[in-house]
Amino acid sequence: MELNNKYIHKVQYYETDRMAIVHHSNYIRWFEEARLDYMKNNGVDYASIENKGVFMPVINVNCEYKYSAKFGDWAVIETNLTKYNGIVMEFSYVAYLQDTDVVLVRGNSKHCFIDENTRKPVNMKKRMPEEHEATLRVLENTNNI
Amino acid sequence: MELNNKYIHKVQYYETDRMAIVHHSNYIRWFEEARLDYMKNNGVDYASIENKGVFMPVINVNCEYKYSAKFGDWAVIETNLTKYNGIVMEFSYVAYLQDTDVVLVRGNSKHCFIDENTRKPVNMKKRMPEEHEATLRVLENTNNI
Amino acid sequence: MELNNKYIHKVQYYETDRMAIVHHSNYIRWFEEARLDYMKNNGVDYASIENKGVFMPVINVNCEYKYSAKFGDWAVIETNLTKYNGIVMEFSYVAYLQDTDVVLVRGNSKHCFIDENTRKPVNMKKRMPEEHEATLRVLENTNNI
Amino acid sequence: MELNNKYIHKVQYYETDRMAIVHHSNYIRWFEEARLDYMKNNGVDYASIENKGVFMPVINVNCEYKYSAKFGDWAVIETNLTKYNGIVMEFSYVAYLQDTDVVLVRGNSKHCFIDENTRKPVNMKKRMPEEHEATLRVLENTNNI
Repeated sequence: MELNNKYIHKVQYYETDRMAIVHHSNYIRWFEEARLDYMKNNGVDYASIENKGVFMPVINVNCEYKYSAKFGDWAVIETNLTKYNGIVMEFSYVAYLQDTDVVLVRGNSKHCFIDENTRKPVNMKKRMPEEHEATLRVLENTNNI
Repeated sequence: MELNNKYIHKVQYYETDRMAIVHHSNYIRWFEEARLDYMKNNGVDYASIENKGVFMPVINVNCEYKYSAKFGDWAVIETNLTKYNGIVMEFSYVAYLQDTDVVLVRGNSKHCFIDENTRKPVNMKKRMPEEHEATLRVLENTNNI
Repeated sequence: MELNNKYIHKVQYYETDRMAIVHHSNYIRWFEEARLDYMKNNGVDYASIENKGVFMPVINVNCEYKYSAKFGDWAVIETNLTKYNGIVMEFSYVAYLQDTDVVLVRGNSKHCFIDENTRKPVNMKKRMPEEHEATLRVLENTNNI
Repeated sequence: MELNNKYIHKVQYYETDRMAIVHHSNYIRWFEEARLDYMKNNGVDYASIENKGVFMPVINVNCEYKYSAKFGDWAVIETNLTKYNGIVMEFSYVAYLQDTDVVLVRGNSKHCFIDENTRKPVNMKKRMPEEHEATLRVLENTNNI
């Protein structure tokens, strides 16, 4: 199986700041866009997981800024699942300009799973075995690249 | 009773855009900040209303832009409750620079009340008589200014 | 000429709020996305206008909320140029769910043109005749629909 | 000299997401609010630095999430300058709930200095000796705590 892990984001005017570049906080949002799209494309729909009562909050995020995106640019965000064990989940990201391949940012994020009501951690292997297996398959395919 | 309807907002860097001014969508957020602060200061705590299962979505918003706020500016947003009947609620706003009184924007918003679960309209007079009475008092005091 | 005035926006998780729906301020941003895309598709590239030293600030915006978009929804925003004379420019918008055609919001916005440095109004007919003519053609085609 | 490094942020409704907590990207914005406030309170006004033609972009940001802030909470963000040499600048942050001291997030950010026009790195020691000295004093006072 080939993973579809390239997500396209068009830079919006409202994402720019006084420096005339994308405000640094927005790349954290792009990571979220790309992560959820990547998971869904590979069989794990986060909207459906939430509808069954589980949230996936962020417990760590890191972003290294290499080059500044500007209004009108098109960015590609490549996501990879780098760790998953039913308890925690980690992703790495690289975003670059679609036209030139110039790298904009590199980053990663770490997540856990909690119950919507109790807000206590849940083990996805027990709580949602189907989504758990689908996620393990994504991890396996990522490692095989 | 004198209404405390002046809310102070410090313009943040991340609120600016490529024009080096506050992005126009942020004033809609300032209206929300000011509205919720105004209600709370006058005895109607929206967080508490939500915790009892009622949401207050926006059904109309309008904003007229007169002058541009910049990073580092301090703005004052004056809110007034202009209509309330237990079913719908309307506010007017004017934001100006704290130092110079130069008007930044004028606007208004209209809201209704819905149940968190059914998402159906609720009548606050029946559902939350205490908050209803408190809101009527705010309306009365506004009209007496 | 047929105008391409349908813009697709995928609802992002970070656009939702505590009500589990898109925060009302974000529709104002969608209007911007749709407006700039619409203009560019029809031969008027705002990025290029800015690079030549003219900004197009918003002087009025209005939005009527009919139905709430949720995370995972796909929205279509239809934009129409409703007025243009080289000094001011007006657009109308309607956003609806792609799957069901249910209307989310209706709105409009009014804009003027200012010089980047002086921040004084400019007449596009004199300052950028080519973009002025292109915009008049968009207006004409809109009216002929 | 005692450093004033405590910044108060009131959690806004529009900062919350579908999980009914502050969206994780917003803490990155709080860091910015706190950092600029901290610098200004200690004699280094970023607005003034920008007006003299120097930008201070972010080159790395990290955030560890410990507890979730909710609408209506008041957060305190403590900032410390941890490195500065005229070329790069680093800050650490901790945000906690004002009422309970419960830690929300810990993070840090790294910055450089660039010329507004050339976008090339500048050495603040040469370009703005006064601001450079003021920043060194902040660093010294931080280290003496």
